[in-house]
Amino acid sequence: MMIIAGPCSIEDKSFINLSKKLKDLGATHIRGGVFKPRSSPFRWHGIGEEAFSLIKEMKAEVNLPFVSEAMNPRQIEQLYTLVDVFQIGARNQTDSELLKEFGRQDKPVIMKRGMATTIEEFVMYADYIISEGNPNVILCERGIRTFENYTRNTFDINCIPAVKELCNLPIIADASHGTGRRSLVIPVTMGALAAGADGIMVEVHQNPEQAMTDGQQSLTINMFAELMKKINLFKQYMEASDVKA
Amino acid sequence: MMIIAGPCSIEDKSFINLSKKLKDLGATHIRGGVFKPRSSPFRWHGIGEEAFSLIKEMKAEVNLPFVSEAMNPRQIEQLYTLVDVFQIGARNQTDSELLKEFGRQDKPVIMKRGMATTIEEFVMYADYIISEGNPNVILCERGIRTFENYTRNTFDINCIPAVKELCNLPIIADASHGTGRRSLVIPVTMGALAAGADGIMVEVHQNPEQAMTDGQQSLTINMFAELMKKINLFKQYMEASDVKA
Amino acid sequence: MMIIAGPCSIEDKSFINLSKKLKDLGATHIRGGVFKPRSSPFRWHGIGEEAFSLIKEMKAEVNLPFVSEAMNPRQIEQLYTLVDVFQIGARNQTDSELLKEFGRQDKPVIMKRGMATTIEEFVMYADYIISEGNPNVILCERGIRTFENYTRNTFDINCIPAVKELCNLPIIADASHGTGRRSLVIPVTMGALAAGADGIMVEVHQNPEQAMTDGQQSLTINMFAELMKKINLFKQYMEASDVKA
Amino acid sequence: MMIIAGPCSIEDKSFINLSKKLKDLGATHIRGGVFKPRSSPFRWHGIGEEAFSLIKEMKAEVNLPFVSEAMNPRQIEQLYTLVDVFQIGARNQTDSELLKEFGRQDKPVIMKRGMATTIEEFVMYADYIISEGNPNVILCERGIRTFENYTRNTFDINCIPAVKELCNLPIIADASHGTGRRSLVIPVTMGALAAGADGIMVEVHQNPEQAMTDGQQSLTINMFAELMKKINLFKQYMEASDVKA
Repeated sequence: MMIIAGPCSIEDKSFINLSKKLKDLGATHIRGGVFKPRSSPFRWHGIGEEAFSLIKEMKAEVNLPFVSEAMNPRQIEQLYTLVDVFQIGARNQTDSELLKEFGRQDKPVIMKRGMATTIEEFVMYADYIISEGNPNVILCERGIRTFENYTRNTFDINCIPAVKELCNLPIIADASHGTGRRSLVIPVTMGALAAGADGIMVEVHQNPEQAMTDGQQSLTINMFAELMKKINLFKQYMEASDVKA
Repeated sequence: MMIIAGPCSIEDKSFINLSKKLKDLGATHIRGGVFKPRSSPFRWHGIGEEAFSLIKEMKAEVNLPFVSEAMNPRQIEQLYTLVDVFQIGARNQTDSELLKEFGRQDKPVIMKRGMATTIEEFVMYADYIISEGNPNVILCERGIRTFENYTRNTFDINCIPAVKELCNLPIIADASHGTGRRSLVIPVTMGALAAGADGIMVEVHQNPEQAMTDGQQSLTINMFAELMKKINLFKQYMEASDVKA
Repeated sequence: MMIIAGPCSIEDKSFINLSKKLKDLGATHIRGGVFKPRSSPFRWHGIGEEAFSLIKEMKAEVNLPFVSEAMNPRQIEQLYTLVDVFQIGARNQTDSELLKEFGRQDKPVIMKRGMATTIEEFVMYADYIISEGNPNVILCERGIRTFENYTRNTFDINCIPAVKELCNLPIIADASHGTGRRSLVIPVTMGALAAGADGIMVEVHQNPEQAMTDGQQSLTINMFAELMKKINLFKQYMEASDVKA
Repeated sequence: MMIIAGPCSIEDKSFINLSKKLKDLGATHIRGGVFKPRSSPFRWHGIGEEAFSLIKEMKAEVNLPFVSEAMNPRQIEQLYTLVDVFQIGARNQTDSELLKEFGRQDKPVIMKRGMATTIEEFVMYADYIISEGNPNVILCERGIRTFENYTRNTFDINCIPAVKELCNLPIIADASHGTGRRSLVIPVTMGALAAGADGIMVEVHQNPEQAMTDGQQSLTINMFAELMKKINLFKQYMEASDVKA
């Protein structure tokens, strides 16, 4: 099971220490934003190239595969030697020309669902990557836009079994964006796994209150530890369920 | 854990036999529509009062509490001696005058979430029932309307832990309406339980292809058996999770 | 062209004077809430029966037909001698039993569109009223719930010509609820008329900042005067358009 | 007033003749898709570079400015000498890196609203273009995704006056995508103009039934003629309205 954890944005050297803790607790991949897409050019957009040496250091010391988002061909090139898995963000998911670029890469790609992409379109868009030669696409449900405003997005749990009946691609769950509220991330992540998700992505920060981006939806390290305990118990249920059901 | 199962509509004598099977498999409550709300007056609206004797027979033979929907004060009165738990449908959930009527009853009420009701409004509407003197309100997440059209509704899993942080009312999950597709009901029901739902409601029909209403989203009896196996295994995970996490 | 104007709620004697001014400016009907539906029982729900004498006084002095909302059979009875046109609110629009009650009345009924009702359902729900014997149904587009949050609702202008191709009922536009913002009411009302709406409903208050309900979306009297000037000019365009186009 | 008309996709030589007719009827700009974004790579994506000579011919014979969509830097370069106004499609509207590319061009850019972009985000995204040095941004409302399925999208008429209170950019209305149905395009276009839109974009095809893309929402030439008659009459109303209101 893919357990991708890490900060929304890589901010400074604390990224190394956080990554170590996440690995100890059970993360299989580290995530961290280098180039951050935002709704306005006047907001903070990540530390960019300054993150490169921190990523190298993390990979040397922690030795986990690294996941990060690229938004254009130049960023794909810059991140190529650093990332093990590319991420396509929700804002770029319907950008067919960018998807084709990812189709020409030889590394797996996590494609997040667009905010207004239907389930059937979501599966069809993956073909832009696959048909260019890259079959390693991992879909990621991360919530859709609805009238609900207590949460940042509405995590579409139906999407998980629906994708499984429409194609053979793996699908993971990002309940951080899917809820936008720290207090809801653990239950919704567990729900997604029980509905058949092949893995999870969660934002974790050493001090969420002071995160540059998405602090409200980032778990503390203690919360991530609690989530991992639940997941480990849950794996036993899943194995029993596969055998007996 | 509340396990409410039964046909969308009570159609004929097969209701008795179906209810027996559901009880044997683990259902704690039997549901069955008597008066069916529809989008047009020219559609079939249930067998109405003809169902009364079938319900009495079911209760005598199967001995499980019965859940059914009432849409106006007259129907509340008609169903009063037959139901153990009233249901308020999604189409009537924002009808404050009807909610007050339920508030004057001495039986529990399941209030389904309206198709466009926000989580915070959902919790507030319960006050219409409670403030009239009936504290036994059970909320029911059953999906909201979104742009997604592969599914009939979008089951809002976020609603479950959100309700738990906003009030102390129990909340159950209706993945039959929440998905509108038989093939998605089991995984989404399990997801809702893993996210903290206090119970479930599922539509089951002895022959879904021939159901008068909602056949597409009704489980077969075999599928309900499979769901109950999963739930029984899942209870062990939950107990372990409560102790260790 | 039906021009329905008035306060969201009837609050006090200022209702009479406001109604006079609205008539002078061109209103053809006066609206005013007696029983106000709200999302919580703990909010203000209108002055109720205290409004009756004010309505009588308005009708005697101003001599315009009166429109108001009823939410249950008892309120229909109470308002029967006072109203010329009943209103069914968005929160009750999918309440088929209530619609049937209105179908047994001999006065016209304005049916507001529910927040999550599709256009085709909207037209079908009218059949609940018509099929009980009351053919005088006026549909009212008042906005639907979407992800957009700058506005209270999204006024669905498409609904107006769509209804015209689906049935022969008149449809009017309520841009007060359709936008939720005073500054947008005039342009959206004009847009609805240009798209073919048969009339309008607008909330006007002598002092919107102090309105008990919906002050943010209520026009001032001066703004209503400005709207009427535009409408009067627009009628000339419409007549020319009918002749030449 | 900007009147942009033309086929969804440039298909063949009939584009020249169509453009002539549109000019005669009052179009100020000709549109025509060269590179078509679609939800699947297995669908038809326009005739691409074969359109270039047809565009040159149209510009020589018809002498109207040309509008077309580019989806990546290479397409911007290829279209640069052919287009007078670039278009950013709804699927790419949240692609900040692409917006910056358009910000480095010295030609105006029409930015269509993304299917799930809020009004405030829409205005903020324009800053990605403006802050790179290109102030000539024209916003285009083209409908948002909602639960409504009688129409392809829900044209958000509220967006037009809302944009006018949030910024100084012009905003035009595309009721072809905003409705997805030929029969609704004329009334919704007129509605948008009455709400304050600075111009319109409509798809017109010499034979919509046989269009390669978007035939269902394309006007016939006769319908475009009817629309232009309405617009010409409407301009008189607008002038009178500005003077007297």
